[in-house]
Amino acid sequence: MSHAALRPLAFTEYVAERRADVDAALDRWLPAPPDCPAVLAEAMRYAVASGGKRFRPVLALAAADAVAVANGGDDEARAAAIALALPLACAVELVHTQSLVHDDLPSMDDDVLRRGQPTVHVRYGEGVAILVGDGLLAEAFGLLARWPATAEAPDAVPRKLRVIAELGQAVGAAGMVGGQAIDLAVTGSCGPHRAGASLDLAALSDMHARKTGGLIRAAAVGGAIMAGASAEQVAAMSAFAARVGLAFQIVDDVLDVEGCAATLGKTAGKDAGAGKVTFPGLVGRDQARLMAIEAVADAEAVLAGAGLSSPYLTGLARSVVHRRD
Amino acid sequence: MSHAALRPLAFTEYVAERRADVDAALDRWLPAPPDCPAVLAEAMRYAVASGGKRFRPVLALAAADAVAVANGGDDEARAAAIALALPLACAVELVHTQSLVHDDLPSMDDDVLRRGQPTVHVRYGEGVAILVGDGLLAEAFGLLARWPATAEAPDAVPRKLRVIAELGQAVGAAGMVGGQAIDLAVTGSCGPHRAGASLDLAALSDMHARKTGGLIRAAAVGGAIMAGASAEQVAAMSAFAARVGLAFQIVDDVLDVEGCAATLGKTAGKDAGAGKVTFPGLVGRDQARLMAIEAVADAEAVLAGAGLSSPYLTGLARSVVHRRD
Repeated sequence: MSHAALRPLAFTEYVAERRADVDAALDRWLPAPPDCPAVLAEAMRYAVASGGKRFRPVLALAAADAVAVANGGDDEARAAAIALALPLACAVELVHTQSLVHDDLPSMDDDVLRRGQPTVHVRYGEGVAILVGDGLLAEAFGLLARWPATAEAPDAVPRKLRVIAELGQAVGAAGMVGGQAIDLAVTGSCGPHRAGASLDLAALSDMHARKTGGLIRAAAVGGAIMAGASAEQVAAMSAFAARVGLAFQIVDDVLDVEGCAATLGKTAGKDAGAGKVTFPGLVGRDQARLMAIEAVADAEAVLAGAGLSSPYLTGLARSVVHRRD
Repeated sequence: MSHAALRPLAFTEYVAERRADVDAALDRWLPAPPDCPAVLAEAMRYAVASGGKRFRPVLALAAADAVAVANGGDDEARAAAIALALPLACAVELVHTQSLVHDDLPSMDDDVLRRGQPTVHVRYGEGVAILVGDGLLAEAFGLLARWPATAEAPDAVPRKLRVIAELGQAVGAAGMVGGQAIDLAVTGSCGPHRAGASLDLAALSDMHARKTGGLIRAAAVGGAIMAGASAEQVAAMSAFAARVGLAFQIVDDVLDVEGCAATLGKTAGKDAGAGKVTFPGLVGRDQARLMAIEAVADAEAVLAGAGLSSPYLTGLARSVVHRRD
């Protein structure tokens, strides 16, 4: 990433450049032999490389950038903010990948396809898939702590610690893992203690706020923190991301209903088949789409109210509603 | 923990007090409803509470204490060092528990008993057991970042970041998770890519240095760092712990050969039955015991050479050889 990359860019160009930043950093960071056993290294790279959109890491970088702009930063300050947020961006993508690998396991959602490719446990075996997830989770936190702080940001150390705390909360038992436990309990698919149950709209939203929303929030908030955001800016970014996360999950549910395996790259219609509670299932497809559009409009308003409007954050929020996969 | 706890204590009393520090802190820290879904909270506490010896966290606290003493600290300084190392001590125990829960899974070692109790997946189902491990791992890093720094230690923030980096390395793909991947490949029990293989003594030691040694090292090194150890003291603590970790795994293997299910609380003789490569299998039982004794003697010498001798660290190192379970 060079300063030249920060000239005014159309949204799609900007996203492509940030995605390239993230992919290059992930490639540098991911473990490789001889430090890491070859099979594990290969399986971790397979999991991370399989064509993800990098939505969360790009959000983290765009959030850092927006804070730099809001605080009067020039191109150099924007580039520095993006560079400072890059470890967090990578960490969030590793955690996201971890959640997919473990969610796909036979004792969880039992998925054989992900992004059109065999899931990690299908390709490498269940034991390796469990270790891939564990490794990704540990590496996510490790890289945040290990990545050298730039000389320009003496505050980078306490900021990193705050970001690690945010990520821990987003991922932990009250966050993503907790949301997945609720999901498991509701689908009733596993173990003697899990009776089938149902969810109303509030409980479904709570589950997704944990399962999906927390990490999206941690990406945006973490990016903002690394860029030196004020408490008010962090709060606004959190509120923005919570709404975007809600929209994201609603659209996910709608796409599952509408989708086909070819488009989604995973076994579509599966949620309904597994008796999962979904937003369109609870309120209907049209109403669900409307909820997503409203959540994104709210998200933009929150951002504007805090002086953090950014064409790239707006573009990312809207892409959540308009995406087709 | 009060200062009175730091009067000269016999080894067993000291260990009992540090263990009580750790158990109380873990109980305060572990997630609970309503933040965390009830089943997950229960299963996480079940995994952590099931009678472990807390060897690694007590080692972390004793390492911090030894550094405080070596640097001329009085009772107050020793108590402060122990308090600063307590989050790390808890984090290490959570990570250790995570490794046990995931290692016991059917697709890994497939164990039904752990410390005389049903393993987590037997009791709560496989899906919950996977989530318990993921949650413990995330909470371990989160608590390190979140635990409030004491006012007495302005350096606590950069120290914590170093400790998180150490823990990430110890746990990640080049560490504990990598060691488990080697183990899985050698036992050949899982997946199309895992052909049965064999290990010589160097490769077996390398596997265990990753799988068991890294976390023991992170405990001692992390405790030392939190107590403000110099680079030389950190290096000595690392060398000490590497030798203790080796002895630990050798004795584990010997006990498995000698043991019975009643004493070990797990299915004994299982390693040999599964065709696992072990130290006594490679060099014989007597020679293996001798290797462990020599490793501990080396460990003590390293510590003495750095002026870090401590009756408690010595006691912990020797307890590794003399333990019966």
